[in-house]
Amino acid sequence: MPVGTLANVKTLTPAQLRDTGAQMILSNTYHLHLQPGEGIVAGGGGLHKFMGWDGPILTDSGGFQVFSLSEMRKISERGVKFRSPHDGQIIELTPERSIEIQNTLGADIIMAFDECPPYPVSREEVETATERTYRWLLRCIETHKRPEQALFGIVQGGIYSDLRSRAANALTELDLPGYAIGGVSVGEEPELIHEIVRVTAPLLPVNKPRYLMGVGTYREIAIAIAAGIDLFDCVIPTRWARHGTAMVRGERWNLKNARFREDFQPLDADCPCYTCKNFTRAYISHLVRSQEILAYTLLSIHNITEIIHFTQKIRQSILQGSFATDFARWLNTDNSVELEHG
Amino acid sequence: MPVGTLANVKTLTPAQLRDTGAQMILSNTYHLHLQPGEGIVAGGGGLHKFMGWDGPILTDSGGFQVFSLSEMRKISERGVKFRSPHDGQIIELTPERSIEIQNTLGADIIMAFDECPPYPVSREEVETATERTYRWLLRCIETHKRPEQALFGIVQGGIYSDLRSRAANALTELDLPGYAIGGVSVGEEPELIHEIVRVTAPLLPVNKPRYLMGVGTYREIAIAIAAGIDLFDCVIPTRWARHGTAMVRGERWNLKNARFREDFQPLDADCPCYTCKNFTRAYISHLVRSQEILAYTLLSIHNITEIIHFTQKIRQSILQGSFATDFARWLNTDNSVELEHG
Ligand SMILES: [Zn+2]
Ligand SMILES: [Zn+2]
Repeated sequence: MPVGTLANVKTLTPAQLRDTGAQMILSNTYHLHLQPGEGIVAGGGGLHKFMGWDGPILTDSGGFQVFSLSEMRKISERGVKFRSPHDGQIIELTPERSIEIQNTLGADIIMAFDECPPYPVSREEVETATERTYRWLLRCIETHKRPEQALFGIVQGGIYSDLRSRAANALTELDLPGYAIGGVSVGEEPELIHEIVRVTAPLLPVNKPRYLMGVGTYREIAIAIAAGIDLFDCVIPTRWARHGTAMVRGERWNLKNARFREDFQPLDADCPCYTCKNFTRAYISHLVRSQEILAYTLLSIHNITEIIHFTQKIRQSILQGSFATDFARWLNTDNSVELEHG
Repeated sequence: MPVGTLANVKTLTPAQLRDTGAQMILSNTYHLHLQPGEGIVAGGGGLHKFMGWDGPILTDSGGFQVFSLSEMRKISERGVKFRSPHDGQIIELTPERSIEIQNTLGADIIMAFDECPPYPVSREEVETATERTYRWLLRCIETHKRPEQALFGIVQGGIYSDLRSRAANALTELDLPGYAIGGVSVGEEPELIHEIVRVTAPLLPVNKPRYLMGVGTYREIAIAIAAGIDLFDCVIPTRWARHGTAMVRGERWNLKNARFREDFQPLDADCPCYTCKNFTRAYISHLVRSQEILAYTLLSIHNITEIIHFTQKIRQSILQGSFATDFARWLNTDNSVELEHG
């Protein structure tokens, strides 16, 4: 899932996004609540119509953003109070409020409001947050009023396998339409992310979507799929694009690099995207050097296409029974193949 | 003609640009010479292939930019020396060099290298510049090596009708494939632009394209077409877009304005553009407030479509013999209808 924080996937029109092969996109309750406000989104016919995206949309609960972005937050059993970065006003977000906002926005999948502790933090704090997340989930289920929207629960538990297992088992008993692993990629080592995913994913029901939140480069995707994950979101493809970086066959290229100045090949001759069909590395390098916005659009188109294509190739390998060998480069974490920098 | 200074029309892919109805685009010799350099453009197969635009392209000569942008310039009969804003190197641009660069870039229409004096400036200086522009034109014609590229001459002469007339008559005798009126919109009053165009355009051959350089909002276009102009370029539609401004039926709207926050109509219900077919004013207002790049893309699409549609309506009115009445609002300069600000 490409990330469309503010009701748009940065630099792309819905038509361009559709052409990348993207199906579902993620948007952010916290950001949309602050600007333009869920009332205006609803006035525009709901999130799909407002942003012109007729594919599925998932909204997160705002939990992650409240805990990672906002200043002056106060957490209580009731919810979280924080200061709006827009106008300095004190805003309160509770499980009930998050679900109300998400019901108003109208995405296809909505997420429970969770407490996402930072890393590193004490085991006690993680345990408290994980248990509170469970109690908040019950309140989310209670509040949720639109059955056509699927409410997913979020497994917290930090880097502690026993807390993760306990949370996964408790959530599974609630028979929700889908489950997510949250609180990863918050600063911990990649190996710890892999460990968390390997422990947690198998505890979640196979017949329900399993979503790994905020993770989505090559290695993480391959390892998570091997562990049973179905759904990812990641800002990396579009964020890197805005830094002039292309993702090409597992490598990471800085298009400002002198070697691209007179390189008249497409980024990837086998890539079916609009960028690779129409432009050369030299042209994109020129646009990046000139800080032309079109560079970011063209690189976003390519990077999203590339990462979706990567997951499609994994699907194909799984169907052919050759996943472990085809993707050994990414699955074998001992032999640490690093992303190469162009 | 939308302006594509650095081998792209800012924020738009060629596919998006094509959908606006744009036919020819303008690109800048001066900027492309500095970055990426005409050698790289030629290496990429020439300007059309390099930037992925299969429609006609016009390159200016670099004259206007050298005179308006660069510091430390020294003008002599030979040409202009100036300091590169990229790396501080001294660069010399002469009539011969400008044409060589334009021959290398490979646009369909190329422009003679001219001296474009600022405004206000003494009559003597304008006269000197106008006469030098003519001598430089002869050297451009001499240097020009690719007959499939049409070389246009540029009429200078500042605000002085007799200098404009003299230059127009001298150029016409050279039987060039097209003619331009340059050195307008350099700081003078709109009424003076209208006056220059009314005096100069009728002196140029009716059977050759007549191009008014750097002018292209509603009133100027209407008045210039009435005087016989066929071709315009203007950065206004894309520049205003990047300031969050929409051009709608002759008005100028700042989408940040509170009145658009909950306005769920398209910018213009009759506009056939992608933006108007898919998005509301409220959505674009939200994007502008959030400083999302997509706002500038959507507004550029609309503004270019709008101004091209405006010229198409003029063409239709001329064919129906109702131009003077249909466009009285724009042609009647006494009754000064100003652009309204939203
Ligand atoms: Zn591609
Ligand atoms: Zn429009």
